Amino acid sequence: MTETRTGAGPAPAGSRILAPTYEGDFVLNGPLPLDCGRTLASPTLHYAVYGRLNAARDNAVLVCHALSGSALVGSWWPEIFAPGAVLSLEHDFVICINMLGSCYGSTGPGSVNPETGETYGPDFPLVSIGDNVRAQALLLDSLGIRRLRLVLGGSIGGMQALDWTIQQPDRVERAVVIGVTPISAMGLALNHLQRQAIVQDPEWAGGRYLPQRPPRSGLALARQIAMISYKSAPLFDERYGRNPDRSGEDPWRLDGKGGGLTGGRFDIAGYLDIQGRRFIDRFDANAYLAILRTMDTWDPTRGYATPQEAFSRIRARLSFVGISTDWLFPSADVRRFAELIQSAGVDADFREMISDHGHDAFLAEQAELVRLLQ
Amino acid sequence: MTETRTGAGPAPAGSRILAPTYEGDFVLNGPLPLDCGRTLASPTLHYAVYGRLNAARDNAVLVCHALSGSALVGSWWPEIFAPGAVLSLEHDFVICINMLGSCYGSTGPGSVNPETGETYGPDFPLVSIGDNVRAQALLLDSLGIRRLRLVLGGSIGGMQALDWTIQQPDRVERAVVIGVTPISAMGLALNHLQRQAIVQDPEWAGGRYLPQRPPRSGLALARQIAMISYKSAPLFDERYGRNPDRSGEDPWRLDGKGGGLTGGRFDIAGYLDIQGRRFIDRFDANAYLAILRTMDTWDPTRGYATPQEAFSRIRARLSFVGISTDWLFPSADVRRFAELIQSAGVDADFREMISDHGHDAFLAEQAELVRLLQ
Repeated sequence: MTETRTGAGPAPAGSRILAPTYEGDFVLNGPLPLDCGRTLASPTLHYAVYGRLNAARDNAVLVCHALSGSALVGSWWPEIFAPGAVLSLEHDFVICINMLGSCYGSTGPGSVNPETGETYGPDFPLVSIGDNVRAQALLLDSLGIRRLRLVLGGSIGGMQALDWTIQQPDRVERAVVIGVTPISAMGLALNHLQRQAIVQDPEWAGGRYLPQRPPRSGLALARQIAMISYKSAPLFDERYGRNPDRSGEDPWRLDGKGGGLTGGRFDIAGYLDIQGRRFIDRFDANAYLAILRTMDTWDPTRGYATPQEAFSRIRARLSFVGISTDWLFPSADVRRFAELIQSAGVDADFREMISDHGHDAFLAEQAELVRLLQ
Repeated sequence: MTETRTGAGPAPAGSRILAPTYEGDFVLNGPLPLDCGRTLASPTLHYAVYGRLNAARDNAVLVCHALSGSALVGSWWPEIFAPGAVLSLEHDFVICINMLGSCYGSTGPGSVNPETGETYGPDFPLVSIGDNVRAQALLLDSLGIRRLRLVLGGSIGGMQALDWTIQQPDRVERAVVIGVTPISAMGLALNHLQRQAIVQDPEWAGGRYLPQRPPRSGLALARQIAMISYKSAPLFDERYGRNPDRSGEDPWRLDGKGGGLTGGRFDIAGYLDIQGRRFIDRFDANAYLAILRTMDTWDPTRGYATPQEAFSRIRARLSFVGISTDWLFPSADVRRFAELIQSAGVDADFREMISDHGHDAFLAEQAELVRLLQ
């Protein structure tokens, strides 16, 4: 069987990975005030660009990444750049900025707090989607980019894309928001389970673990919980069914590896274990906690008298994409969310991506997404 | 707000709890051979009965309980006994037997192995649904009950009910199988997550924890993972939405209880935490692991040349119930399963229970279930 078992990571596809034109850091020359009331002292935004900014500076596109993504959009979303697809290296200047809180170059819990000289760790503050957008706008200012031809993203990347259109209405021409709404109670529940898996691991040590001794089993379990919400029951049935693990374990055997109470694994369990193990080699537990909270707390209508007041600020043309088997952000919820925004007078359309891949489809079935967006 | 926050436990409803006519133990006077190849030496079955066996001994009903249930069906399913409902204390003799592997009186991982004089712990063998049915049949023999008027159960209880009709075709007149099929890949995934939550807790100690020092946080997390699969997204949206925890925590606050990375909880998180805490006071971690494996490994067609060969053994009249918002055992899967069994020439019908309660509906909305079964 030649199954790839790739995840939603920053480098899934392999062959067609694009190298950025430039990859570097932007350091804010002052504190970033946060929605939560605290500030981040001179935070760093790590970013990558692809293609060239034209003389008119009107060909800029901002791609916003998902939870565990990085600024290297050419690595995790390469088919978006295919000839005739959504973005063009010849005509577009594509920017992708690592989220605050992440462990891929921007300031996060693993960074040194310049005010104390020590790693933030569990003292890293709550950074909202809005805080990220404000910091990203400063980075674009520094590049001399006033207006974005397009901003797009899936999942928490879609939260950022939509927030751009509300916070910076004059700077966005078009936005594509994929597989996302403010997260539902079920989504909050799933994030709560993941958070606990990490903080209950004694190696988490209240968030003050040493880099060489991270809470590996807790983070791996968190990733596995996430994976079931990123994929779908039909995909799992089709790929793994009730088959025993392909490595040869037998769930009906007298005693498994872990004794009679745990037993040989089914194939889906082997798949999840691999996903967990892969993830702990590429992501940081505190960064994961930080971004979960960023995701949980996003509500673009918060602070406005009515949803109408928030959404009527939008000047961009919007496209929403729901994924047919997504149960983390159900397609019906995305449709209703798009309709709510339309009812505020916004030019918005809704498209449904038919896929068995669940939430992950925007990364796992890029060619399908491209077809839908063309 | 007057929300009860009850779970799928053995005593949810409160006021209408029924006392059993008799509650006691049946000890097999010899070893029970198990499907896995091992034996259990003289296992105990703890059971409860309600009502009286008539002279013809033809009014016996067997109720099979779900994962964390007990023999006290009058406590956790009281409305089934309401006047004019499914069972009658006047006319029926109702038996409910605690599953092997459980911690409510039957032999399980916490029991002493008579062959070693020590607690089974992680050496407790894999006990199949079929093993349970064989042991239950011996108990019925001891009560002089040859034939069951009805066997019924939900979830893993439904697995037992259906297995009775295949293994003991001449002893069952009617069976009601609620919210269950052989567990899907998504269900196996959810059980794998729960298993890991327990075994990763250092207090689990390879299954050799002392009773006074159980893996509390691991079992609580396992229960929380289970709870999201027992309930439904619509119910969570309706009850908890994106509200902050009702105790007054604020998810948008600068720092929550656990510092900036964990923050104030949403209401759904508070609900799940309560469910986890309640569960660890009433259930044992190793028993939980044992029954998860019993559930995972159930496939009534295993050991037969074809599904047809297995199902054509059935002589009982069957009713299957699917629950409209059940995503652990989706109603469409239950319907297909019922159709597969019908196609083997079995007299089987399918009924759908419309409920927002998800898998848990057969416990949470008993009056609705009664209406459907009348």
